[in-house]
Amino acid sequence: MENVQLQILGAGSAVPTKKFSHPSQVLSLREKVFMIDCGEGTQHQVRRFGVRVSRLNHIFISHLHGDHCFGLVGLLSTLDTQGRTGDVYIHSHPELEELLRPMIAFFCKGLSFNIFFVPFSPTDTELIYDDKSLTVTAFPMKHSVRSSGFLFKEKEKERHMNSELIKYFQVPVSQIPLIKQGADFTTADGEVIPNWQLTTPPTPSKSFAYCSDTAYTEKFLAHIDGVDCLFHEATFLQKDIAAAKKTLHSTAQQAATIAKMAQVKQLIIGHYSARYDDPTELLAEAKSVFEATDYAADGKTFIF
Amino acid sequence: MENVQLQILGAGSAVPTKKFSHPSQVLSLREKVFMIDCGEGTQHQVRRFGVRVSRLNHIFISHLHGDHCFGLVGLLSTLDTQGRTGDVYIHSHPELEELLRPMIAFFCKGLSFNIFFVPFSPTDTELIYDDKSLTVTAFPMKHSVRSSGFLFKEKEKERHMNSELIKYFQVPVSQIPLIKQGADFTTADGEVIPNWQLTTPPTPSKSFAYCSDTAYTEKFLAHIDGVDCLFHEATFLQKDIAAAKKTLHSTAQQAATIAKMAQVKQLIIGHYSARYDDPTELLAEAKSVFEATDYAADGKTFIF
Repeated sequence: MENVQLQILGAGSAVPTKKFSHPSQVLSLREKVFMIDCGEGTQHQVRRFGVRVSRLNHIFISHLHGDHCFGLVGLLSTLDTQGRTGDVYIHSHPELEELLRPMIAFFCKGLSFNIFFVPFSPTDTELIYDDKSLTVTAFPMKHSVRSSGFLFKEKEKERHMNSELIKYFQVPVSQIPLIKQGADFTTADGEVIPNWQLTTPPTPSKSFAYCSDTAYTEKFLAHIDGVDCLFHEATFLQKDIAAAKKTLHSTAQQAATIAKMAQVKQLIIGHYSARYDDPTELLAEAKSVFEATDYAADGKTFIF
Repeated sequence: MENVQLQILGAGSAVPTKKFSHPSQVLSLREKVFMIDCGEGTQHQVRRFGVRVSRLNHIFISHLHGDHCFGLVGLLSTLDTQGRTGDVYIHSHPELEELLRPMIAFFCKGLSFNIFFVPFSPTDTELIYDDKSLTVTAFPMKHSVRSSGFLFKEKEKERHMNSELIKYFQVPVSQIPLIKQGADFTTADGEVIPNWQLTTPPTPSKSFAYCSDTAYTEKFLAHIDGVDCLFHEATFLQKDIAAAKKTLHSTAQQAATIAKMAQVKQLIIGHYSARYDDPTELLAEAKSVFEATDYAADGKTFIF
């Protein structure tokens, strides 16, 4: 079974602490590596945790606050220093290219790879990435600036062939791709063998949703419905709800409420305010609403 | 005696390692705090080492390579989040303002303090800071882009009064400032008391020079002559002199040779290439030429 791995590079928020750096995460699946947000110091965390970035080609930026993107130019510079050749695609709201292109042009002269900015709308739901096995959809959230959540969703996989029955029915090799996709098989004698006899169900397709930064809002529930793993920001405790409302962030209780309503399989909370020394209390608050909750920490890895 | 304190925030170079972050240092004297270079992650190091930045008003950037300035906008953002009101002056080559102003305008809206860029020439020796007790002079070095060294030099301090003799000669209070500056005193009877009888020498004025990044060059020796402390980059070992020449950096042996020729009191080496796991060998190489050498490390503090 192919697993998806999520590694947290920074579990903090705007002001980094000794424990928690600025937001960045790396999602690895099928030997592809995707980065979500790239706060200042991300390249340090990449080095610190031994993240393999040779297959990192797509970076997704949720919104244009500095703690979510100030690490980009430094990361690109260091990838260059390390002899990278594969192109990098930066998926973000449109303004980022205008802001970073002059920096990249000045500081990253003679790059050994291309950088493509791929803008997406901050106000619409939009399919922003599509390959043969995965789609990424961006959807609007609710924050002090336009902010987008991301849904990473594996496409339905092929059914597994039962090799003994393939032999028994003498299925020609040319038919196998169709049967893996669900087709029945008709023998030379005209007998129809239903697909369910020849195959077993495919490996489940996994899904991951990233929701940070956002105030409590139910408007994107449909997008994250039933995902295998939801990362939802939990900047504050419920007792600090006033701060959450003022800054358009969520509390741990609110994150858990969203997870519960969306019936996700697992919730990870993070993006903690620097006022909290450790996330124990935030975790307890979330778990009281939604038991299947874990907490993000720099370097921590989740498999699902 | 008033000491000067130098704290290393990042002792590494272009590619950070687990041990050594990007270049930044903090020089503290007479309750003033000056930052020299501000690589990515400087705000993390400030937090990590508990650096008091409330009195940080002047930041000096040696040259426009990303590892020396990518931490600036993040640091300014976080100073703002923490309720800072004192203005910040960024002393740098002229292009930096053009590069960072759009970033600051976009990401640091409604700052609670002013940011002033104070450009200086990358090709001339220039007095770039002057207050009642200190001057800072920038001077050209030799690197792959224009790069400037900095000389921080305390002004000559006042002589210390001998309070018993002041009483004995009945020196009026109005005369004391002049005598502290070296004037003789004429008594009511017309007797001239030479200054050396009334005072003892002032506390020595300290000086610090920062030379990073630079290839080996003797052209700035006059500026760093006899300083109390010299930070000189030592990116490579002598055995890697080819890499040093190619990238216009110095070896540890070269840094020590400069320190010896300039007859400085103490040399600190740093800005290590990521290829070296620890600076022991670099230190040994430097000490074989100039014994009074120490090595920089993240968080390490030097008093002189």
